[in-house]
Amino acid sequence: MSCISFEQFSFQAKEAVEKELEQIINDLQAPEILKKSMQYSLQAGGKRIRPLLTFSVLAALGVDWKKGTKVAAAVEMIHTYSLIHDDLPSMDDDDLRRGKPTNHKVYGEAIAILAGDALLTHSFKVLSTLDRNRWTDAQILELITGLSESSGAEGMVGGQVADLLGENKQLTIEELEFIHTHKTGKLLAYSVDAGCILGNASDELRQKLKTFSYHLGLAFQIRDDILDEEGDQERIGKPVGSDLSNKKSTYPQLLTLEGAKEKLNYHINASNQMIQDIPGDTTFLKTITDLIATRDH
Amino acid sequence: MSCISFEQFSFQAKEAVEKELEQIINDLQAPEILKKSMQYSLQAGGKRIRPLLTFSVLAALGVDWKKGTKVAAAVEMIHTYSLIHDDLPSMDDDDLRRGKPTNHKVYGEAIAILAGDALLTHSFKVLSTLDRNRWTDAQILELITGLSESSGAEGMVGGQVADLLGENKQLTIEELEFIHTHKTGKLLAYSVDAGCILGNASDELRQKLKTFSYHLGLAFQIRDDILDEEGDQERIGKPVGSDLSNKKSTYPQLLTLEGAKEKLNYHINASNQMIQDIPGDTTFLKTITDLIATRDH
Repeated sequence: MSCISFEQFSFQAKEAVEKELEQIINDLQAPEILKKSMQYSLQAGGKRIRPLLTFSVLAALGVDWKKGTKVAAAVEMIHTYSLIHDDLPSMDDDDLRRGKPTNHKVYGEAIAILAGDALLTHSFKVLSTLDRNRWTDAQILELITGLSESSGAEGMVGGQVADLLGENKQLTIEELEFIHTHKTGKLLAYSVDAGCILGNASDELRQKLKTFSYHLGLAFQIRDDILDEEGDQERIGKPVGSDLSNKKSTYPQLLTLEGAKEKLNYHINASNQMIQDIPGDTTFLKTITDLIATRDH
Repeated sequence: MSCISFEQFSFQAKEAVEKELEQIINDLQAPEILKKSMQYSLQAGGKRIRPLLTFSVLAALGVDWKKGTKVAAAVEMIHTYSLIHDDLPSMDDDDLRRGKPTNHKVYGEAIAILAGDALLTHSFKVLSTLDRNRWTDAQILELITGLSESSGAEGMVGGQVADLLGENKQLTIEELEFIHTHKTGKLLAYSVDAGCILGNASDELRQKLKTFSYHLGLAFQIRDDILDEEGDQERIGKPVGSDLSNKKSTYPQLLTLEGAKEKLNYHINASNQMIQDIPGDTTFLKTITDLIATRDH
């Protein structure tokens, strides 16, 4: 049994990671406009799913989840930089993100690019300077390798390239899946794996949680595509149907809306099945999976 | 006495680092266009001053310089990403770099931004996966922290922001020096410091080499500004006078050409004086300093 409800946990977790992020940027000796631009996107709300995943794995492993706050902040910095760069005019050219003007709309393209670069760069220092009384050097190096792999050419950036190349093309389900497992899946999976690294999970457990992440990541994306088609613009913070107008392939488009919902259920069920195999208190992991299946923004 | 001439050393060093870079990109499981774009800028020539600095420090410390090849490659990846992003239309808007079309001119803006992101991200994996039979975990973590610090908001990116903010303004010498010590100085200094970390230099020696780097970095930039005013376009690979047309403050503009040359001499002399205090064979370090003072591109 968890001693706190998921709502309490989620509230505390968001607060902890947002406070940490604010502090990390405040501590930088850097031009004010750069810090403001970094802070603007870091504090623009967001569901903080990646931190919640890391923390939930720690909770399942019986480790005080707050110990993972800096690591969660580093992942959130990577996620945030990727949103800033994805929104740029030469990429998705989005004016709104979570209902607010995108970074380049407020700070201009040059500063937005540099704020992204700075967030990306500094996330590695956040990891490399983790408390070495609490974590071993080997754990820290494993965290750094994983963050780089999941967010670089072989992960998120590679997925974004595949996404761009796929515009205005009729993709197969396999091609669409490549995009999503790379563009969003690998960093989500890293958030789970980071919890395993910090909590000294066994290889067997780590493998199970990897399979869990794979299904959860795809479920997350399919739900995103469904929301883009039938969601409420005010809730999701961007125009409904923007994928279609951006000429991107989506699950509903390839499988029909009904087919996409079936596929979503399949991956949610697979995630839940994996969780059942995991020892420890998996309440939070289960709740996150349910939230992803039913989220409305 | 070095067993090889500086010319042989320089040739071998460039070859080693370029081969390493090629291999690093070839090994990536990533979309071909992304790898091509990364490779294009990495293999576009360049003086490889940062690798030469790391190698020269290793040579002075009596360490086989080839052992520093991966670290030098990581620094060159950071330097290369910064050139790709700096050349973008929303930044310096340059069409040519080293006499060749800039990355975004060949691959488009989106891929150029992502190639930069991927180079930046992967450089940290190059460090975090260094041979742990050769280097300690503590050395590797120190290398990662230093690379992040020198290239992020508190280093190179911060300098680039200050540079952008300083456009169309009359800067003071102090403001100009802030830009250059951050935009180029800190990564040059890191290249020297990385040699110290790998070669287990004493704190005292490290401090001396830090002072050396400071003067060398400023000398490098002042020489750059002088070349922009009186250099040969074919040699430097971009239009002469581009700083003026970009409305950037330069040393010759603030100090006159004569004054800039005096300041260059001051920093070159200070660098050379530091080298005299360093034990070991400093032939290569001395030669690089001379080259920076007199380079024509």
